[in-house]
Amino acid sequence: MTVTAGILGATGAVGQRLIQLLEPHPDFELAALTASNASAGHPYRDVAKWRIDAPIPESVAETTVRRTEPDAVPDDIDLLFSSLPSSVGERVEPAFCEAGYVVSSNSSNHRTAPDVPLTIPEVNPDHLGVLEVQQDERGWDGALVKNPNCSTITMVPTLAALDSFGLERVTVSTLQAVSGAGYSGVSSMEIIDNAIPHIGGEERKMEQEACKLLGTFDGAEIDWHGVDVAASCNRIPTLDGHLENVWADTRESITPADARAAMQSYSSIDLYSSPDPLIHVFDDEPDRPQPRLDRLRGDGMAVTAGGFQETTDGVQYNCLAHNTIRGAAGASVLNGELLHKQGWL
Amino acid sequence: MTVTAGILGATGAVGQRLIQLLEPHPDFELAALTASNASAGHPYRDVAKWRIDAPIPESVAETTVRRTEPDAVPDDIDLLFSSLPSSVGERVEPAFCEAGYVVSSNSSNHRTAPDVPLTIPEVNPDHLGVLEVQQDERGWDGALVKNPNCSTITMVPTLAALDSFGLERVTVSTLQAVSGAGYSGVSSMEIIDNAIPHIGGEERKMEQEACKLLGTFDGAEIDWHGVDVAASCNRIPTLDGHLENVWADTRESITPADARAAMQSYSSIDLYSSPDPLIHVFDDEPDRPQPRLDRLRGDGMAVTAGGFQETTDGVQYNCLAHNTIRGAAGASVLNGELLHKQGWL
Amino acid sequence: MTVTAGILGATGAVGQRLIQLLEPHPDFELAALTASNASAGHPYRDVAKWRIDAPIPESVAETTVRRTEPDAVPDDIDLLFSSLPSSVGERVEPAFCEAGYVVSSNSSNHRTAPDVPLTIPEVNPDHLGVLEVQQDERGWDGALVKNPNCSTITMVPTLAALDSFGLERVTVSTLQAVSGAGYSGVSSMEIIDNAIPHIGGEERKMEQEACKLLGTFDGAEIDWHGVDVAASCNRIPTLDGHLENVWADTRESITPADARAAMQSYSSIDLYSSPDPLIHVFDDEPDRPQPRLDRLRGDGMAVTAGGFQETTDGVQYNCLAHNTIRGAAGASVLNGELLHKQGWL
Amino acid sequence: MTVTAGILGATGAVGQRLIQLLEPHPDFELAALTASNASAGHPYRDVAKWRIDAPIPESVAETTVRRTEPDAVPDDIDLLFSSLPSSVGERVEPAFCEAGYVVSSNSSNHRTAPDVPLTIPEVNPDHLGVLEVQQDERGWDGALVKNPNCSTITMVPTLAALDSFGLERVTVSTLQAVSGAGYSGVSSMEIIDNAIPHIGGEERKMEQEACKLLGTFDGAEIDWHGVDVAASCNRIPTLDGHLENVWADTRESITPADARAAMQSYSSIDLYSSPDPLIHVFDDEPDRPQPRLDRLRGDGMAVTAGGFQETTDGVQYNCLAHNTIRGAAGASVLNGELLHKQGWL
Repeated sequence: MTVTAGILGATGAVGQRLIQLLEPHPDFELAALTASNASAGHPYRDVAKWRIDAPIPESVAETTVRRTEPDAVPDDIDLLFSSLPSSVGERVEPAFCEAGYVVSSNSSNHRTAPDVPLTIPEVNPDHLGVLEVQQDERGWDGALVKNPNCSTITMVPTLAALDSFGLERVTVSTLQAVSGAGYSGVSSMEIIDNAIPHIGGEERKMEQEACKLLGTFDGAEIDWHGVDVAASCNRIPTLDGHLENVWADTRESITPADARAAMQSYSSIDLYSSPDPLIHVFDDEPDRPQPRLDRLRGDGMAVTAGGFQETTDGVQYNCLAHNTIRGAAGASVLNGELLHKQGWL
Repeated sequence: MTVTAGILGATGAVGQRLIQLLEPHPDFELAALTASNASAGHPYRDVAKWRIDAPIPESVAETTVRRTEPDAVPDDIDLLFSSLPSSVGERVEPAFCEAGYVVSSNSSNHRTAPDVPLTIPEVNPDHLGVLEVQQDERGWDGALVKNPNCSTITMVPTLAALDSFGLERVTVSTLQAVSGAGYSGVSSMEIIDNAIPHIGGEERKMEQEACKLLGTFDGAEIDWHGVDVAASCNRIPTLDGHLENVWADTRESITPADARAAMQSYSSIDLYSSPDPLIHVFDDEPDRPQPRLDRLRGDGMAVTAGGFQETTDGVQYNCLAHNTIRGAAGASVLNGELLHKQGWL
Repeated sequence: MTVTAGILGATGAVGQRLIQLLEPHPDFELAALTASNASAGHPYRDVAKWRIDAPIPESVAETTVRRTEPDAVPDDIDLLFSSLPSSVGERVEPAFCEAGYVVSSNSSNHRTAPDVPLTIPEVNPDHLGVLEVQQDERGWDGALVKNPNCSTITMVPTLAALDSFGLERVTVSTLQAVSGAGYSGVSSMEIIDNAIPHIGGEERKMEQEACKLLGTFDGAEIDWHGVDVAASCNRIPTLDGHLENVWADTRESITPADARAAMQSYSSIDLYSSPDPLIHVFDDEPDRPQPRLDRLRGDGMAVTAGGFQETTDGVQYNCLAHNTIRGAAGASVLNGELLHKQGWL
Repeated sequence: MTVTAGILGATGAVGQRLIQLLEPHPDFELAALTASNASAGHPYRDVAKWRIDAPIPESVAETTVRRTEPDAVPDDIDLLFSSLPSSVGERVEPAFCEAGYVVSSNSSNHRTAPDVPLTIPEVNPDHLGVLEVQQDERGWDGALVKNPNCSTITMVPTLAALDSFGLERVTVSTLQAVSGAGYSGVSSMEIIDNAIPHIGGEERKMEQEACKLLGTFDGAEIDWHGVDVAASCNRIPTLDGHLENVWADTRESITPADARAAMQSYSSIDLYSSPDPLIHVFDDEPDRPQPRLDRLRGDGMAVTAGGFQETTDGVQYNCLAHNTIRGAAGASVLNGELLHKQGWL
């Protein structure tokens, strides 16, 4: 059965990736695109500055863009994907939920709210259960589900794979691509022949979202994991793909071979967009993963890891994921597939 | 009194920087340039692929390049700077020392040998004292002094400034410029729109050299510092300037303000090429230091630091230095100035 | 009927693209890979520094690499693709032809020889007829066919489309990607934040090859076109895709609309790797084509053109093609398809 | 005698360069900085996103920024440099001239107006004479002088040097740096691993401004040169320095040696910021000039040229200049020096 879907904020960098992923998707049918009032009423082709290295799908190019308000979207939409700017999403997403829509959102608002599930389907699909609390408390017919920040998604599957060894402390340094900041987020004058050791709010997001994602849902509440996460976030001159250096300190002793094995066998999930394996491990190529060579593994949905080394208190390694596919648009789509599978639509 | 100086390996990227620094230097006079046998006998201009954005100094352009052997260098040279490839330096530098030359070397061989001083003049000038042991044991009239690897130099002054709080563990992630690998070290096809999370041997160098540099010299031996250093080294598409994310865990409690104050007041040294202050601290610009904007502070000899944050066990910050000036050519020149001041020439 | 194929020089940048194109090709079956003597005897995976952002095909990874000599290649190979360095190809390719092999070569040697066809199948497929002269004169059982240089291929289809207006003079400026120089051809220290206004021999190749390609074959000889071509070649920091600014002066008057129409309707050819249309024309987006956005049109085999403007003596426009697919590996494959279709295998 | 100077639009990329050039200037003293109303009233340090790789001059950092209106600027300012956005400049610059200020402007408005001198002091200093007409016709006490667009300035000195051979047609292709578009002009997502073959309005500017600059002033009117200029403008991923491929067709025959000699001996002018020679010619290095290596020749005020080759109708070569120094801020400063020398202040 096909799910009728829409996109809130369809013209931005993540919105474009959502279109690229949803247009050929076997289970979803794109039926509505929204953007700012200035773009509403115009054909998508005219208002989206399309930046993907494949043409705009024909069926989408001539679609008339709508306002981002509940009354501008058809009632029979089953699922809305949101890639709205956080400040807009904070105001508008609850309005859609109240109007009865189910929203799978990449927008950073509400991610740490106790009654909003923050999910990576392969990692914590059961957290979706908190939606009952959400609907109950907020009186919503709709529902709001979040995926984490792109830099968080990159490392959390690898950390989840290691948690059986007792994660105690995680130190992580990121080398993030410019697309993570959106089309006009990073000026070329800032980043050519340069790196910027600061991304506003990003470190806090990684530290908090990781603890929520790795937490346990007891049927009523999400109990956050107690791991001590310290992140340092850097922007570098790459287009797509966040690379991260991770040091994971564990309670039990762990060898690089243990870590590789745990990641290689980390459970996948039976959803259309979930790759198998979820984590691609490089055994004997210490210079991998690399953003340009590895970001498209599993059609951009796989996490890759390599460079495992022993440390005094655990293990050190590098991981990578495509920040606008696995880290944003694909993450929302995957949550949409999970909502569908679990019967929330 | 002017010191007559030569350069071993003058045509490479670091050799070119040495020329740029020594040609206008008030205390040194360039009297000999050596390179491979293939280049020997030719004017410098013809065999050096000059890559610096200022013309070759006129006085150097027409200088005839010599072979890199003791018998090809004039006897009255007081000091030789070496930027030889490590494999060549390992063989040739001891031969020069045996022939009576004092060598200030950037080459990575011998750096951890017990009787070879590894010095950053502002950090451990007293380690030069081990040269007496060296000459005694090896029967050399000359002497061999090393500066550390570029990635090590960038962080060690900041660590030395913090050591009064009791350094216990250092975790460091580097974002290193391509010039650190030499002219043909990194192909453009490898690094455009990419990052490489591995630099062969670099992590071990940072971990070992830091402990030796922070160690104490008791008049006979250098006792290495016991700090546990874990490094992860990355190459990114920048031309010059290594940026590093550091987490320093200390025995005593330390605040970001403590760390900033310790770095700001960290002692300088009265040598021509040593900047004052040695460490430039950014107080309220969390996105600094950045390679392109800050690598030339103090004519490329300053270390810059910023982004201080509290962590559970210490402090987190970023630091940066110009890898071919402070991190290589300038480091060797500064050691040459120290050798001169301490009367070793 | 499947053609058994081999690759001479399979480990380089173009060799890797050949593998990527041939492995899934419906008409060709890869049966032999050769490389330098140092690589011969080893599995392909171990000696090729694979740089393409998709994994090495499994069937190829474990293939043992052979020496690049006729006696090291099986007799039953129908067609050899050559991406040998020019100096090696000059010596070895004739030896293969003499031994009876048909060679479709991307190597720059022999391209302007009167009895060697230089073909772009959509432009001058009839030039293949000169092979009869070649075999006759040289006494070969095999045959040697060349595709042009990547920068030539990019513009020649557009020029061929305009030739009915009487091409008199062509001025062309190129913005070429680093992959055109091979894996270690352009150092990152040369090209980051830079451009190089010189590529050795490239301008002469464009000027000569264009005249040969646009020439006419009378059944015995290829009569070169008399157009006056002046090229200026630049290397810029892009990975793939050569962009070219072209001014075409014609005998008859021509408008931008004329030029666009001529290109849009320029004949395609019924070969597996030939896209339809051959030339994708951008009508109303003056900032296209762009390398990163348009190089993969037609799976990297299309030429794209845009920015048409009137000039005093003709028309001005920009064109682009993927230099290692349409401009090298794909060009050789397409010539192989033409050889197959015309019954030369 | 010191000239009291101000900057209109001091916070942008060109405004920052103006500060960098004027602060140490022996003849000018910076006395006023203006910017948008949003920035007015704040210290310069707080409202300028300083992007130059040297710190903000101390004397400027704490200066309070003023509104960009005549009543907000002190009366005793002798000369205003303008780097306003064109749309703002078009409205505001005449108001300043009417209020009696002399304005040396880099803003693109009014450049082709008959009574506004468009000058490169080394090329057409006499065009300043049209200011009498300007003041007369417009009733201004002040005066408005323009420097050309950065891409025009790069080639015009080389064309002026060749004009004794009778310039008939000029074809030029540009490879322009991102700083030419201002701080937020080119997004990193647009330009990394890419090139853009279109810069809005730039080609027309080059074609028109070149004819005006090369024209003759008869004491009353500027008679434009009749040369046929066709330009194609490209943006590439370099930070600073516009590189241009030029084909100059001349009435009289010209050899590469003729062209080199004409450029090498092209007259300089006795002004503080004018380098001697104006045009640095590379004789035997065909791969020069290159943006990163050569943009700072003559402190960024020299034009460099190389790669001379014979063509059927003239000569082909490459030229380069620093687009924000010689091509913008330095050009305005030089015009200011000329105004001072010719007694217009």
